[in-house]
Parts: sequence; structure tokens; C-alpha cells
Amino acid sequence: MKLPTSVTIKEVGPRDGLQNEKTVIATPDKIEWINRLSRTGLKHIEVTSFVNPKWIPPLADSFEVAMGIERVEGVTYSALVPNMRGMEGFLKANLDEVAVFMSATETHNQKNINKAIDETFPVLKEVIDEALKNGKRVRGYVSTVFGCPYEGATDVQQALYVSQKLLELGIHELSLGDTIGVANPLQVQRVLEVFLREIPAEQLAMHFHDTRGMALANVVASLQLGLTTFDGALGGLGGCPYAPGASGNVATDDLVHMLHGMNVQTGLDEAALIASAQFMQDKIGRPLPSHTLQTVNAC
Amino acid sequence: MKLPTSVTIKEVGPRDGLQNEKTVIATPDKIEWINRLSRTGLKHIEVTSFVNPKWIPPLADSFEVAMGIERVEGVTYSALVPNMRGMEGFLKANLDEVAVFMSATETHNQKNINKAIDETFPVLKEVIDEALKNGKRVRGYVSTVFGCPYEGATDVQQALYVSQKLLELGIHELSLGDTIGVANPLQVQRVLEVFLREIPAEQLAMHFHDTRGMALANVVASLQLGLTTFDGALGGLGGCPYAPGASGNVATDDLVHMLHGMNVQTGLDEAALIASAQFMQDKIGRPLPSHTLQTVNAC
Repeated sequence: MKLPTSVTIKEVGPRDGLQNEKTVIATPDKIEWINRLSRTGLKHIEVTSFVNPKWIPPLADSFEVAMGIERVEGVTYSALVPNMRGMEGFLKANLDEVAVFMSATETHNQKNINKAIDETFPVLKEVIDEALKNGKRVRGYVSTVFGCPYEGATDVQQALYVSQKLLELGIHELSLGDTIGVANPLQVQRVLEVFLREIPAEQLAMHFHDTRGMALANVVASLQLGLTTFDGALGGLGGCPYAPGASGNVATDDLVHMLHGMNVQTGLDEAALIASAQFMQDKIGRPLPSHTLQTVNAC
Repeated sequence: MKLPTSVTIKEVGPRDGLQNEKTVIATPDKIEWINRLSRTGLKHIEVTSFVNPKWIPPLADSFEVAMGIERVEGVTYSALVPNMRGMEGFLKANLDEVAVFMSATETHNQKNINKAIDETFPVLKEVIDEALKNGKRVRGYVSTVFGCPYEGATDVQQALYVSQKLLELGIHELSLGDTIGVANPLQVQRVLEVFLREIPAEQLAMHFHDTRGMALANVVASLQLGLTTFDGALGGLGGCPYAPGASGNVATDDLVHMLHGMNVQTGLDEAALIASAQFMQDKIGRPLPSHTLQTVNAC
């Protein structure tokens, strides 16, 4: 099994995790949580989303969070920015990195950002240009790369088209999202083989959800093709609160536990990660789906 | 990714799953559940354990269950048999296949069956001889192959020694157990490479627990080495009831969903599996850890 010696983990729990949780987390708790995350060895934390609070009420305090956190040296703090209005807040808070997002499938893009795919690029171009002009790097999320809740299987050429357009607009890294957690390892391999013919592994990150329990298997399939950047949410935040098994993002703690077990370095402190996951679990008020956390919790 | 075209799934939920559940399931419900399982396409169901009821109270009704189930043609019904006393019940119930078990590590073997490893073989020999004399095949479980709760890492040569002794005693198949769910895909590959030098893949089954979320990743690692028999428990039964994420056996429904998605045939009907998992979930009275089941349940 060919594995890289080290990988980079990007923590998206404060954004992708919390935006899907029903429990409202108080702003000071979010800030304390992010400050704890900054001391786990993480080098990249996505702290919030500058979207219209009407769309995502749990992240309505984006500006307060972004202004309130400690900015530890060596850690990149990023936030989702959908448009120029969000860009204003981002620049005022002076975070380090912008993240833009769109979908690989028309229907999901339409439902999620109310625009056709080709109408989305000009809006993102504005944001990306403004970010670059202000010396900020931009990361791009492509959702529904492996399957769409409305269209079913995603055409890999369509996903590649969207991805390449984003790269042309000036993003430095693409995060390929299995938004609804349907990808399997064979599919991951096949999709990545197509992508890797056009885009170097260094520009790709994988963003898996554990909805059907395949997230870690998909990580291993990606590692074997040379991918070295993975998104995770501590504790597996972001699952449906009414179904313990229906996880959200792959749990950063599960991911790191597996990687360390296979001698793949992450630079992260497992005990500090678990302590941070427990902190947020207490605030959320229910057991989080992370397997590693639960083995610590109880059995 | 080199994958087999088809695999065999052996359902251990009624035994390995229920023996670890705190909720006591009524005998008629167990029987009805097994009867439903027999109509999912499963060809092998481990229905109970003829151990001393003092050890495993949830399976104290082993004889009633074994006598009460429908015996569908083409399905092998097996049960765990630890000793000659258990063998009496097994033969009286006239199930199809005996399963014997022991551990790869001394301490776990001592704690689990109160004997040293080398003292265990003569006891199992008696059971195996009696089974073979009565025209019954014998399957052998080796526990703690990838790690032991008392000894930590397991010496692969010790696991191989126990396995080879069991094969010499006349078992037809070895089920290699990651009893505490600590194996990672790299370790699975390394251990299996050692085993496959001595034992053909056709004589090996893999028995993963999803304690740390790596079960499906470990299945994929095994598939890539040509393994084609996997144990599962429907719904991921057998987890700690107080920790939703701390799963028991890999969920048969998750396993089958992944395999079918990768065009690996199992002969199983996914909808019938989910319906059977829901039946037992209702009896257990809490959401089971299976991811696939939970996506159906709620979100």
C-alpha cells in the first residue's frame, strides 16, 4: 500500500459542521472552541461563513467570531465567502484565506446558490479578484462531485469542467466534495484518475462526508493516488441530530487516528483533538458521531 | 483497484450482535428476525451460541432459537460451540455448521475462555472431531488478530500459529477477528500478506468491528488482496448501547451497500436487509449504528 509520509488536515468543523447543527452555539463558545483548535497542531481552520444570515442562521455571528478568535502564528484562518457583500465582512475581519463554493451539478447549484453553473463563475470571479487584490489566497469548494441529491450520479467531465474553471479564476486549491456521502472507494479512484490527468495532486483536497460509513475507505483510496490534503470536522459534526449514525463530515479525530496508525504524519495532537471534540460535544449536548470520541466517551 | 466480482457475506448479528446488546430480545422475535434474514439472500447465518447461559445470558435461549427457526434450503445455519456440553445442544438442534473460537493472544484467551492457548486446542479438537463425525463442517474464529485489549499489538506469528493449528484440527474456514476494532487498512494488508503465504484466501474470512470507523476501509484492503468472505451484523448490532458511535460488528447493510456500489456482487437484497435491520432496531428500541439504516431512518 503506497501511502504518503504526511498529509495536511483542514478543519472545517466551525463552518461546515456547525452550519448543519440544530443546536445554536453561543458566539463565545465558538470562539473558545476555535482557540482550542488553534492549539492542536492544525494549520488550517475554516472558522465561519460570510453568507447572508438568513440562509444560515447558525453562522449569523460570522463577523464576531472572526474578530474574536486568537490568531495563532502559522495557522491559516479561512471563511466561506459567496459574494462581494460577504467579501466586505471578510476583509473587515482580515482573515487569511477566502473559500468560494459551487456545485458540479446544475440542480444542486441552482438550489444552493440560486444560479446556473455558468452564471456562477462571474460572481465568484469578482470575489476571487478582490481577494487576490487584497493579498488573500482563495480555496474553491466543488460540491456534489460524486453524486447529487437531485440528479443522482455526477458526470465526471462536468465536475472537471467546473474545477478547471475555478482554477483558471485563480484559486490555489480545489476541495472536491462528496456532499451527500455517496462516494465509494472505487468511484473515488476512477474520478481522481480523471482529475489527476489535468490537475496536480498538490492542488486537490478531498472533502468526504461519512453518511454511509465509507469516508475513511475513501480517504485511503485517495491516499493511494497521492492525495495529501483532507478536510475534516472534529467529532464528525454536521450530522443529522436525530440519527446518530448519519454522520456529517468525516470526523477529524477518526481521520487522524487512522492516519497515525498507518504512520502517516499529520502534525496533530490526538489527545488535544479529542479534548476539543469533547468541549464542542458538551455544548451541542448530544454524543457526536466520531467513533474515536465515542470510544473515549463510554465503552 | 483490483476487486473480486463477488463475495460471500456471513451474518453474525443474531449471535455476535445480540450477545453484546443490553436489551433482551424475546425468543419469538429472534426467531422471526432470523426467518426474515433467511429471505434476504444470505447463505450463511450464525443464529446463536451454545455457551453456558451464565456467561452470555442474552443467548440463554440458544436451543429454542435453533429449534424454532425455519430452515430455508441453501442457507447454512451455524452456532458457536465452546465445548462438548454445547455440542450436545447443537447436535440435538441439528444445525448445519459448528463455529469454534479462541484468541490469538494469551491474556484475551485466558479471560475469555479461562484457558491458556495451548490448553484450548485439545478442548476444541474434541468438539471439531465430534462435529466432523456427525457430518458437520466447522468454522474457526480467531479473536484479537489485530490487537488485544490486554496485550496491545498482536504478534502476527502468534496469530498465524493459532490459525494454522485450528486448520490442522479440521476447520474449513478461519474468521480473522479484529475484536476490538483497532485494525487499520495498512495493518490489514501487512497481516494478510503474512497469512496468505501460508493459507489460501478461500480459507479466510474477515471479521471487522467498526469501533474506530475503519471497518469498511479494512474490507477494501482485504478485497484488494483477494479475500472474498466477510462477516457482518445487520444494523451494526453489538455496539455499546450508551455510545451511538461505538459500533459493534461492521453493519452488513453498510458492507453490502458499499460492495454493490463497487460492482461486487453479494446476492443480497438491500431493501430486504434494511427492512430486517429496522425490525431488529424496533425491538432493540434505539437507533442502531449502521449508516445506511440511519440515512433511511431520518435524514
